[in-house]
Amino acid sequence: MTRLINDHAEFAAQALAGFAASQVDRVTAVHGGIVRSTTCPDGQVAVIMGGGSGHFPAFAGWVGPGFGNGAACGNVFASPSESQIVSVARACDNAGGLIFVPINYSGDILSFGAAAETLRREGIDVRIVPVTDDIASAPASAWSTRRGIAGCFVVLKIVGAAAEQGRSLDEVEGVARAANEATRSFGVAFSGCTLPGAAAPLFVVPPGRMALGLGIHGEPGIAETDMGTADDVARLLVEGLFDERPPEPGRRVAVFVNGLGATKYDELFLVFARVRELIETSGMRVVAPVVGEQVTSFDMAGLSVSLTYLDADLEELWLAPTDTSSFALGAVARGARREFAEPADGDEPPIPEASPVSQSAALYLAHAFVSVHGAIAENEEHLGMIDAVAGDGDHGMGMMRGVTAAKLAAEQAAAHGAGVGTLLARAGAAWSEQGGGTSGALWGVGLSAAGASIGDTQALPDDAGAPDQRLRPVVEATRAFSDAILATGGAELGDKTMVDAIVPFVDMLERAIEAGSTLADAWAKAATASTEAADRTADVVSRRGRSRIHGARSLGVPDAGAVSFALIVSAVLGQEAR
Amino acid sequence: MTRLINDHAEFAAQALAGFAASQVDRVTAVHGGIVRSTTCPDGQVAVIMGGGSGHFPAFAGWVGPGFGNGAACGNVFASPSESQIVSVARACDNAGGLIFVPINYSGDILSFGAAAETLRREGIDVRIVPVTDDIASAPASAWSTRRGIAGCFVVLKIVGAAAEQGRSLDEVEGVARAANEATRSFGVAFSGCTLPGAAAPLFVVPPGRMALGLGIHGEPGIAETDMGTADDVARLLVEGLFDERPPEPGRRVAVFVNGLGATKYDELFLVFARVRELIETSGMRVVAPVVGEQVTSFDMAGLSVSLTYLDADLEELWLAPTDTSSFALGAVARGARREFAEPADGDEPPIPEASPVSQSAALYLAHAFVSVHGAIAENEEHLGMIDAVAGDGDHGMGMMRGVTAAKLAAEQAAAHGAGVGTLLARAGAAWSEQGGGTSGALWGVGLSAAGASIGDTQALPDDAGAPDQRLRPVVEATRAFSDAILATGGAELGDKTMVDAIVPFVDMLERAIEAGSTLADAWAKAATASTEAADRTADVVSRRGRSRIHGARSLGVPDAGAVSFALIVSAVLGQEAR
Repeated sequence: MTRLINDHAEFAAQALAGFAASQVDRVTAVHGGIVRSTTCPDGQVAVIMGGGSGHFPAFAGWVGPGFGNGAACGNVFASPSESQIVSVARACDNAGGLIFVPINYSGDILSFGAAAETLRREGIDVRIVPVTDDIASAPASAWSTRRGIAGCFVVLKIVGAAAEQGRSLDEVEGVARAANEATRSFGVAFSGCTLPGAAAPLFVVPPGRMALGLGIHGEPGIAETDMGTADDVARLLVEGLFDERPPEPGRRVAVFVNGLGATKYDELFLVFARVRELIETSGMRVVAPVVGEQVTSFDMAGLSVSLTYLDADLEELWLAPTDTSSFALGAVARGARREFAEPADGDEPPIPEASPVSQSAALYLAHAFVSVHGAIAENEEHLGMIDAVAGDGDHGMGMMRGVTAAKLAAEQAAAHGAGVGTLLARAGAAWSEQGGGTSGALWGVGLSAAGASIGDTQALPDDAGAPDQRLRPVVEATRAFSDAILATGGAELGDKTMVDAIVPFVDMLERAIEAGSTLADAWAKAATASTEAADRTADVVSRRGRSRIHGARSLGVPDAGAVSFALIVSAVLGQEAR
Repeated sequence: MTRLINDHAEFAAQALAGFAASQVDRVTAVHGGIVRSTTCPDGQVAVIMGGGSGHFPAFAGWVGPGFGNGAACGNVFASPSESQIVSVARACDNAGGLIFVPINYSGDILSFGAAAETLRREGIDVRIVPVTDDIASAPASAWSTRRGIAGCFVVLKIVGAAAEQGRSLDEVEGVARAANEATRSFGVAFSGCTLPGAAAPLFVVPPGRMALGLGIHGEPGIAETDMGTADDVARLLVEGLFDERPPEPGRRVAVFVNGLGATKYDELFLVFARVRELIETSGMRVVAPVVGEQVTSFDMAGLSVSLTYLDADLEELWLAPTDTSSFALGAVARGARREFAEPADGDEPPIPEASPVSQSAALYLAHAFVSVHGAIAENEEHLGMIDAVAGDGDHGMGMMRGVTAAKLAAEQAAAHGAGVGTLLARAGAAWSEQGGGTSGALWGVGLSAAGASIGDTQALPDDAGAPDQRLRPVVEATRAFSDAILATGGAELGDKTMVDAIVPFVDMLERAIEAGSTLADAWAKAATASTEAADRTADVVSRRGRSRIHGARSLGVPDAGAVSFALIVSAVLGQEAR
């Protein structure tokens, strides 16, 4: 929702003033909107944009060389008035004529039309080319009555480039018509925006559903359907757009994926990846795509895809340099294109030779990773919740990724005849790689150290000898795990970290084994000690926990790393007991 | 929330692939992250960034000349692994040494540290300078242990410029330390983000409250407080930052207002406007501010302010050109700075002379605008709701703005002796200017036409003569209002627009007056006819309504413009009846 407001009646005006103050080298606020603060050559056509506020960067963010000369800025979602447009247009006039490129809404058309009449009476040549890109708003047979949505970004960028090149008003108008006729957009929305001062969103889309063809102010769309994946959304939009694609094969096409505000960059990139694939598979060629937020609607969730079918002239203009606050091209001379070697996948070093007893222990250990994976899967959400109290809440997800990768690596290593040492090293590397974060890095170094300690050939528990001697390698491996984590993480016992659950585990394991316990008994006692110690971290106020925050909000909640360690050693025991 | 997902385990990887595919001229994906796709001079220091995914543009969006050479990209909110960092760093090495600039989180520090060790063993000189800008994460006495948040944008931009200039690794490291020591950030959060695949947000802030000093993953902050206005938030953040401002007066300072994802551009500009004022008032000077989303956290709502106290060297580097997908400076040669005349406020043309009877009718009419204003205020929300069904939901807000401005203009005109014609013209101009949108434009032309029709001198109802003759100017003025709207808006009766309520009103008014009614009676009958006609628009499926959508979702809901017209003429009657 829109939360930061001083006075909701002044919202748009204050935001615009703030924008202008942040961009004094580029723009100046005049009555009615924003114009370039720098001079243009005499006789250059001036490109006038505009519309309601609430769509930033549209339109004020596109004022600059190679794009718009001025933006008339109405109130929130309201078209600018005639006098606002006249004021902005007058401030931009370079005596080369004006081109108005509004988006096709009746209020905007009324005001831009009235402003054009006023300026023509003053002897200024004004042309109007409304953008009509939204395929959902009228059938193809009536395309010129369609409303304008995000495709105006592409049309205006192209028109601005034509004006910057010094083309005549007739030529620029021709470019504007060609760019508009070549541009089609189709969008979906997942939730409405909340206007400044409003208590509720402008409209609501039921959870898990999406509205097809919704306008940028929440005007009705053509249908509502289930969400699907990012790929599904990409396919749906591209298929809709392809209904009107030009018949000739091999067209070059500018692609613009626009986020409406609350649909964020990563999500847009997911959709773009599939859009690009579909377009290229169809035999067309994607040219200089743009993926981002250019025509927003406050915090509305949704996106649109715009395609502009380029000819040589439109492509030249689409690629021309520009410099605005919100879009720039051709900024700095880039170096030559580098050649990259193909990534050398699959050249994993071979599995070192291992003793049969270590190989059989490794198979057993690979099964233990299955139990561990199950335990973490079951507790993923809980771990995330307790982590969120003191940390960043990602512990459950990170552990899940790590343990999943480690299980897979362990299974593969065991299947290829690895010994225990190699299995632990591979599982650790996979955990660190896929788990990420502090916990991933620590489990990675810990398992690697344990693997190095135990090696691939040592005699293991099922050999002959007194229990405490037979089990010595296991104790040493757990001690190596603990030492590596203490050294790498820098935490000490009592710091409310996973160390608080590790140290009691290793101590109890060693004590029980020295007292003559079997491995199963000793491990059970150690796991219990670890669980109790993890629970006790709830009584501790973190001194130097993961998030390095001063303050003590974590009292009463145990450390997530300690809890997950205890869960894991307990799960190994479950396997042991089978 | 994060909605567009294919496979939540693959979310970050797929998003990164999509990003790389959208920027082939700038970047290439390698194992572990993103590097420039273009060559660098031999011996140039390479700047390596990185961290968890979900913060775009940080860090992949900052890869390019004058900024970072490579970004190691971990999984969602998880630090990259050692091997990812090593892979990205190797791909960036120009034989001039590497500088790692992670943000200070234990996982990142672990992985970058381990990667540095590995690369140093290969003979590569690697320096590490973690960013520690978040003043909320530790006291000033322990500033070097603070976590890093959005200030990394400023630090990395400056470090990237130093490397681009060809400075040595020692020099670049010195710049990095100086930039970090000069940078302080402080942020607030209003709501948590929902990670891909998660059902609920990572954390929740109660409505109307904000969390101070929250980390970019939702790590705990230092306090929770009531929201306040945009100005309040700006003051709170700047005052927090000023606790550590340098003692010398007149410092030049880079200001960066960062949005976390769901706090949108207009809101950020509101806050920036006040931040700038507070800084300039304190005697410091704002240099090349940046306002936007650079370090996000999916759809988290909140923002931070970062201040970097510049010396001459840091300022030069802050202003140096750069070209990345998400931030560019110095793109295109701009023209010279223009001089703008001060806006000529207050030179409103004088009030034309009016007859006493027209002046007294104008006073009466100004009172009628007060009633009209009250009626619209009472129905603002209702009008917005019925408009949202077929239009963009802004009708209530637009009418409210328009009628408020019209009331003020009418009162001022009447107080300065205007006649009815001038009062209506001024009210119409104000309505169009402030109301905006289609309704603002149409009420503007309608009231102006009515004013022109009735003029400032005509005899009015209280004069002598038969009622139908005495009241003729009123009928003609309403007819002029109707004709102007028909001509300008292009809608016809039955199109489900305000015209459907206007035409029956004017027809009934004329009929009743011709039948000898008093103005009060005739107006009452006409207002009733208008209300009934407006209600009947609920039975109509819009053929060419404001939003120009095909489809018929508006059946059962009346047209908002027709309803508001009926409300207004009924409110005038309320005034009449007093």
